Amino acid sequence: MTSGRFITLEGGEGVGKSTQARMLVDALRGRGLGVVQTREPGGTPGAEAIRDLLLDKRFDWDTRAEALLFAAARSDHVRNLIGPALDRGDWVVCDRFIDSSRAYQAGGGEWSDDAVLSLHTLGSHALMPDVTFLLQAPTDEIAERLHARDGENSDRIGGKAAAYHARVAEHFRKMAQTDPERFVIIDASGTPGEVHDRIMRAMAPFTGEGG
Amino acid sequence: MTSGRFITLEGGEGVGKSTQARMLVDALRGRGLGVVQTREPGGTPGAEAIRDLLLDKRFDWDTRAEALLFAAARSDHVRNLIGPALDRGDWVVCDRFIDSSRAYQAGGGEWSDDAVLSLHTLGSHALMPDVTFLLQAPTDEIAERLHARDGENSDRIGGKAAAYHARVAEHFRKMAQTDPERFVIIDASGTPGEVHDRIMRAMAPFTGEGG
Repeated sequence: MTSGRFITLEGGEGVGKSTQARMLVDALRGRGLGVVQTREPGGTPGAEAIRDLLLDKRFDWDTRAEALLFAAARSDHVRNLIGPALDRGDWVVCDRFIDSSRAYQAGGGEWSDDAVLSLHTLGSHALMPDVTFLLQAPTDEIAERLHARDGENSDRIGGKAAAYHARVAEHFRKMAQTDPERFVIIDASGTPGEVHDRIMRAMAPFTGEGG
Repeated sequence: MTSGRFITLEGGEGVGKSTQARMLVDALRGRGLGVVQTREPGGTPGAEAIRDLLLDKRFDWDTRAEALLFAAARSDHVRNLIGPALDRGDWVVCDRFIDSSRAYQAGGGEWSDDAVLSLHTLGSHALMPDVTFLLQAPTDEIAERLHARDGENSDRIGGKAAAYHARVAEHFRKMAQTDPERFVIIDASGTPGEVHDRIMRAMAPFTGEGG
């Protein structure tokens, strides 16, 4: 019996994180593991209320306020959901976590990565995932998926300029390069089943099924 | 013509901060000064929305989440209201500011004063008031005033235990002792007019009316 692991899925909008999170959770549950599926911002009533403020177009949060709100939501999420689940020995699969704050506020918002990590230390005792799948797909494939979503992506952050999202993608790439022990880059092109197979192959060392 | 100053009023619940803020603002305006009157948490639409979350009894924010939310609200408040007012040369009178976060989260919540100040640096470039009036009144007088408010004080923070509020008061005292250049302790007993006179005497060096 393996003890629980904390797994995050990261990447830009439209890359398939939510779909892959669901498929990964189903696969782990199929192996008899206790799994908590969650997402950020959100995951607890308090954090979901903060999520509503963050995505609300009536407010014009700048990068600092945004980073503080994400850190507050994460603090509540870690204390009330993720931490207790890991303490029980459950697995946790989370759609976005600290690396999204780093990519969006430090990368996109051109703030400091150290500042974002300081907030994470202050808010959530610097809890880091055991493994982070960074989903990457060709830009044109993502544009097609986002188009198919029919405006669902037009919240306050998703609706920012292309240059912002290019900086986000670049920051994701840099983080993965800097921390290859934790990050696994997943080619997110192709069908959901194909992407899922790539993730499950990368999961093998963690589920105790060999390499 | 003096340039604008940033004045904060601090102290526990029921000590008369809001009344004194109004009277101080009226007095400064009576001298022909441009004055912005504001309060925390709040002061801008974004910060007021965060205030609602902070005082909402449906949520059980711990000290860390609370500190991050206050810092987010303050960041928005400083960027969109306090900073621009001071840049214009206006005076700003604010009912509670960073010292309340220090007293409530570090004192009451037994977190670290350095952590609260770190959040203030990250969120608001560590903006500090020019002068801070710490209003202090005997405990029984405050209890009477709070009783007269008829339950208005029963929000999520005001409703905390007496030991919490004792730690808040002690932290206020310590801060004033440590930084006597900025803090002016005001005896808040007596009528509002009496307290106002004490504040105006302490204001004399700032309004250019001698000591």
